Amino acid sequence: MTSASNQVYPIIWHNDSVSLIDQTRLPNEYAFVEIHRSEDMALAITTMIVRGAPAIGVAAAYGIYLGAREIETDNRNEFLQRLEQVAQLLRSTRPTAVNLFWAISRMMRTAYESIGTVAELKQTLLQTAQTIHAEDLQTCQAIGDNGLAVLPKTPQKLTILTHCNAGALATAGYGTALGVVRSAWREGRLARVFADETRPRLQGAKLTAWECVQEGIPVTVITDNMAAHCMKQGLIHAVVVGADRIAANGDTANKIGTYSVAIAAKAHNIPFFVAAPLSTVDFALIDGSQIPIEERNPQEIYQVGDTRLTPEGVEFYNPAFDVTPAELITAIITEHGAFAPSELAKSQPKQVV
Amino acid sequence: MTSASNQVYPIIWHNDSVSLIDQTRLPNEYAFVEIHRSEDMALAITTMIVRGAPAIGVAAAYGIYLGAREIETDNRNEFLQRLEQVAQLLRSTRPTAVNLFWAISRMMRTAYESIGTVAELKQTLLQTAQTIHAEDLQTCQAIGDNGLAVLPKTPQKLTILTHCNAGALATAGYGTALGVVRSAWREGRLARVFADETRPRLQGAKLTAWECVQEGIPVTVITDNMAAHCMKQGLIHAVVVGADRIAANGDTANKIGTYSVAIAAKAHNIPFFVAAPLSTVDFALIDGSQIPIEERNPQEIYQVGDTRLTPEGVEFYNPAFDVTPAELITAIITEHGAFAPSELAKSQPKQVV
Repeated sequence: MTSASNQVYPIIWHNDSVSLIDQTRLPNEYAFVEIHRSEDMALAITTMIVRGAPAIGVAAAYGIYLGAREIETDNRNEFLQRLEQVAQLLRSTRPTAVNLFWAISRMMRTAYESIGTVAELKQTLLQTAQTIHAEDLQTCQAIGDNGLAVLPKTPQKLTILTHCNAGALATAGYGTALGVVRSAWREGRLARVFADETRPRLQGAKLTAWECVQEGIPVTVITDNMAAHCMKQGLIHAVVVGADRIAANGDTANKIGTYSVAIAAKAHNIPFFVAAPLSTVDFALIDGSQIPIEERNPQEIYQVGDTRLTPEGVEFYNPAFDVTPAELITAIITEHGAFAPSELAKSQPKQVV
Repeated sequence: MTSASNQVYPIIWHNDSVSLIDQTRLPNEYAFVEIHRSEDMALAITTMIVRGAPAIGVAAAYGIYLGAREIETDNRNEFLQRLEQVAQLLRSTRPTAVNLFWAISRMMRTAYESIGTVAELKQTLLQTAQTIHAEDLQTCQAIGDNGLAVLPKTPQKLTILTHCNAGALATAGYGTALGVVRSAWREGRLARVFADETRPRLQGAKLTAWECVQEGIPVTVITDNMAAHCMKQGLIHAVVVGADRIAANGDTANKIGTYSVAIAAKAHNIPFFVAAPLSTVDFALIDGSQIPIEERNPQEIYQVGDTRLTPEGVEFYNPAFDVTPAELITAIITEHGAFAPSELAKSQPKQVV
């Protein structure tokens, strides 16, 4: 399922269904799940078989189509009514990443604005999902290359710290933060990636490490609480992370722990970059305080494999994301270039919803 | 093995041997290991059956006696020569916590300064180990009570964040950071403990959580990377941690991740306290840059129970401690009172080695 160059594509449309890399089984098993129905896509998003803000946008777009094709009616209004139910199911899967809502909105607008029969409409929805999918890959490649302009110019090759997985697995391919890493590696500017393991779900240890190994990029896995110490030791030249939702002022929701890394980077005067498509920017939100933060099952904290870590009688708090304020962000790297957070609003191109 | 009040004592001298709580088996199993020989004590320290700076000091003191009683000679000089080998074995177990070296030095000074037969000398060594043991418990109780003077005065009860386990398990009993927690709980000033899980070895999730549950203190376990987010949410009033070695200027080596918490506390204007006996202060070191930092086996990062987290081909960095600079520390709480880091040198009482 990978090309000769070991490129990773977490979402593949073929044989009239969607193949998803089952990211809950990596790195021990590289397996695919076939998704034929919108309900199964919703479950795949909720259970994080597919995860990462841009990837769940693409997955939800296909989910709309999978739902659409099951609607058995020739009546356009009835079709649209029932498609709204599909959209609602998919919107309810995860609250924080805005790409999900962006992709669903784009699909629904396509449905409302298209003319023709229901059968033609279904075909248009498939084409739109495939367009979103293809655009995301191009977007990531542009983000990666735009990152090259802002990464520090150092005499030695760079060491980049990243948190969670904003890689090929989190997108249509190539990645956002790892897109910048890949472009730097291709240009011979990268020495090594430091990957925070990213508790509780360990996307850094499992997914980012796996992606780097696929492409022969040297990677050092550390626990999240080692990042500040590594910075103090001079081991880190720059931090690059992804984003789940960016407010208009540049405040950025991303995987829990990102905020902690950003504070530490500031304390060590290390540049801190957010890499994300413009579809991640929620221009409707003035600042990050309005971004809803998903809380997930505490079992993610207290259980690893078959091992229960904590005694009975303990309580937990498991926010899946945190918000990094704009003042801690050196630049936001998008497909249209890198922007200071305060200049983000100017970037808003007409074609972005 | 616990008293009616559920007090925890990780080191017990009885039947001419040392009983250690096997801290590698908590919280799932509360079991003791019997230690009869100095070599077994050295292994127990290396493998972290007993851990925590004050506790390994007490354990090493008993280790010296266990080695001493096996030396079969009546010749004082030969005895002392062979006792130096025992001391060397115990010194080589772990490099960072200074209490280990402090306790061994105190035991060896006792040996050199005592008069009488070898048999009498052995008896004196046992008494000295028992004195170190008893003093540590009293010291922790004093630290706990001295913490009450510096904890913030808030209208509501306090929520205290701690990192790793500086509890009864890390000392002769009562704990240093958890000593402050216990005293605040006894005085009705504490609402809840937030415990960082403390990767990679999870002493917070396993040991601190277990200690709190034993005494009915409400405890919320979070992953290390959630601490800054919790601070931003207003959930934390103060941070209290232990220490493995404190330089004369107040720079403090403690469990990896402490530095990260200290940076975050500073960013949120939350007081950050170090609680430790004066035996943790290494007045010979001008600052923290001279503190040796132990690196441990990477398996601690990549393996949890039977689960391997990372793919093959990944590298690791596993420093067991980091150094928090004095300027991030509000006060160092000792058995002689709480000191600003800059005033620590003045605290040096004559009886402390």
